[in-house]
Amino acid sequence: MTQLEEARKGVVTEEMKFIAEREGIDAEKLRRNVAKGYTVIFRNVRHDWVKPVAVGAGVRVKVNANIGTSRDIVDVKAEIEKAKVAVKYGADTIMDLSTGGDLDEIRKTIMHAVDVPVGTVPIYQAAEEMLAKGKAIIEMSEEDMWRAVEKHFKDGVDYTTIHVGVTKEVVEKMKRTKRAVGMVSRGGTFLAAWILHWGEENPFYKDYDYLLELAREYDVVLSLGDGLRPGGLPDAGDELQIAELYTLGRLVRRAREAGVQTMVEGPGHVPIDQIAAQVKLAKVATDNAPFYVLGPIVTDIFPGYDHITAAIGGAIAALNGADFLCYVTPAEHLGLPDVEHVRQGVIAAKIAAHAVNLTRFEADFKKDYLMALARGKLNWARQFELSMDKERFVEIRKERPTKTEACSMCGDLCAIKLINDMLAGERK
Amino acid sequence: MTQLEEARKGVVTEEMKFIAEREGIDAEKLRRNVAKGYTVIFRNVRHDWVKPVAVGAGVRVKVNANIGTSRDIVDVKAEIEKAKVAVKYGADTIMDLSTGGDLDEIRKTIMHAVDVPVGTVPIYQAAEEMLAKGKAIIEMSEEDMWRAVEKHFKDGVDYTTIHVGVTKEVVEKMKRTKRAVGMVSRGGTFLAAWILHWGEENPFYKDYDYLLELAREYDVVLSLGDGLRPGGLPDAGDELQIAELYTLGRLVRRAREAGVQTMVEGPGHVPIDQIAAQVKLAKVATDNAPFYVLGPIVTDIFPGYDHITAAIGGAIAALNGADFLCYVTPAEHLGLPDVEHVRQGVIAAKIAAHAVNLTRFEADFKKDYLMALARGKLNWARQFELSMDKERFVEIRKERPTKTEACSMCGDLCAIKLINDMLAGERK
Repeated sequence: MTQLEEARKGVVTEEMKFIAEREGIDAEKLRRNVAKGYTVIFRNVRHDWVKPVAVGAGVRVKVNANIGTSRDIVDVKAEIEKAKVAVKYGADTIMDLSTGGDLDEIRKTIMHAVDVPVGTVPIYQAAEEMLAKGKAIIEMSEEDMWRAVEKHFKDGVDYTTIHVGVTKEVVEKMKRTKRAVGMVSRGGTFLAAWILHWGEENPFYKDYDYLLELAREYDVVLSLGDGLRPGGLPDAGDELQIAELYTLGRLVRRAREAGVQTMVEGPGHVPIDQIAAQVKLAKVATDNAPFYVLGPIVTDIFPGYDHITAAIGGAIAALNGADFLCYVTPAEHLGLPDVEHVRQGVIAAKIAAHAVNLTRFEADFKKDYLMALARGKLNWARQFELSMDKERFVEIRKERPTKTEACSMCGDLCAIKLINDMLAGERK
Repeated sequence: MTQLEEARKGVVTEEMKFIAEREGIDAEKLRRNVAKGYTVIFRNVRHDWVKPVAVGAGVRVKVNANIGTSRDIVDVKAEIEKAKVAVKYGADTIMDLSTGGDLDEIRKTIMHAVDVPVGTVPIYQAAEEMLAKGKAIIEMSEEDMWRAVEKHFKDGVDYTTIHVGVTKEVVEKMKRTKRAVGMVSRGGTFLAAWILHWGEENPFYKDYDYLLELAREYDVVLSLGDGLRPGGLPDAGDELQIAELYTLGRLVRRAREAGVQTMVEGPGHVPIDQIAAQVKLAKVATDNAPFYVLGPIVTDIFPGYDHITAAIGGAIAALNGADFLCYVTPAEHLGLPDVEHVRQGVIAAKIAAHAVNLTRFEADFKKDYLMALARGKLNWARQFELSMDKERFVEIRKERPTKTEACSMCGDLCAIKLINDMLAGERK
């Protein structure tokens, strides 16, 4: 039985207890949100060693880090390090998006390198295997696609992106629709190209019931991919994006009926004044399914800094109801990230998530409160302890040293020192 | 006559024409906003070589970069480089906050190194001169304070922070108010300490009319400092902060009556769900004076990354009406920034400002539109041209190379390439 089915029956599972304890929330409340499908729990029945994580209503906003090889750069050791660095700096989950090297082996290695839930996009593997055989991606058969999905489910992957909303209908609509950037979702594009070539319906849409059957068996959370998400600000909120969103909303409801956990993926590239509306619309269209956003980035002209453009968009999305932030690294739109890019990406996304979580969870706010107290006392050792990136803290303090008990910005003109001394004098 | 007085008389000044041209707006509309005090123009009558900049209603959100020596680190060459780097990456103005070395000389050198408006905090100089004489800061006389102000005005500084809201009354209130971090405004603290020590009123508040007289003479924009701004999230929106804000609101009105341009400074450290309310309140309290925020940063536990915590807060503040973003660098709370920190800080603040400006100005949105088009065509040369940091663009492309016409993230699995090829095939 899936977590959703258990929850509906009134059962508080071990996973719910574990998560409730970790989040400091009531397990029964968590159960009710899982039962309604407002919250999902990542825990493939075969992924024994994972620490389950919940995403959705009533729990903290979470951060996902995408890692994985590409066809240009295959360095499995670096990918393991990326996974570990991501978790160290606060990623709640990892997606292995590898498309180069021995994909089965890499996936298993990554899943054993960390204890956080792991997600994948199975169709990447189906596509990569075509190229490896010297074939075109569109030559993949329906069986190839299903085989990849089933393999990932059996390997214990906790959530998978399936671009089930890229239907024949929306692909036809796309041919008539002007966009600045056509499609930027890899998996979505494989399916769109396949549909265009064969004139057939998306197999995952056509045989959605079979997908649900498989997902139910392993309790994999289906992450309904937004294949038509905007690839640039000008395309945000266009007819294609929203048509797909409503398809996903229908499919969320069917999944829930089948006892399968689902979440919905969102953009992407969105102007800052449109983010709140987009999140609200997604919640309405999908009956409050957990909403998993990629960024969104709020401008396109700062390549090299998309961890920041995404942190802005992600924070605003989370403030308005998004539940799960996929990080974006400084390498986005330029190349495959390296380990340092992963660190930067995770920290930026974590800042966005924490900024919202601290307004909802006392324990999170307390971290900031303690830091404020430490600053008010110029207690540098304590500030170090409370810092989310201690290496960086030490690095800057060392590079820019002071001769005083303050810092090299103000030195003995430090406001805090001056006012503390003065008020202490007053109290004598 | 000041720009405000000219505007009231119905005169569209040369400065207004210059700004209207540069912003692509109507000069008469700009004049009306200046006349109401909703928009200020930085242009000290003595600063002949400056390119004037407007901040406030109807113009773009602007970015300020603070530079300057400290008592620990005096490297004038580095400060000149910081000023140039800041302007290169998009700072609209510079504040010289030097507190180490020959302050008069440094200020003049910086003002001649760039053609953007320059702001200062004159009381820093008064305080530094006390320490240089081996005296305590509180020993400064009222004459010392006024001398610093007048010197900066005469030197052509375009806007100066004056902590005129740090009154005897609010300092008394502070003694009875519990805060996580007492005071973090340097200038504000000098005055608070001075008030506490001597039991006298803040000279700038007491003799505000004299300050207005001086400001009017040189057409310096008074930036009414928020000496009581929160120094940590727990203090945001407390009684001290808001009491001072309303004092500043009163002083804005008096300045306008005297024909003096003013803006109001804001926080600081603010929880993300409080930013919109704070900006709105500031606009109400100050009758829509241009609002100049320092960040705000949205969490305290990420030292080393406060350019990002501030970019999030700054973007939300700007979206809700803040007009002017003071950058925060990665070195904030740790030490005096170096040149690279300045670059990072400016870019992060520029992202925040641009994200909002593109929703208001077609010319700004067009930059993102063109980038989206270039991406949709995998035109890398054009993407490079349109990038706000070209060095960074090249750096990452080189470090993470691809053998394909796409990038090393997807290589020949590139969604854009695939869908373009497919749609091109369809059209044949």
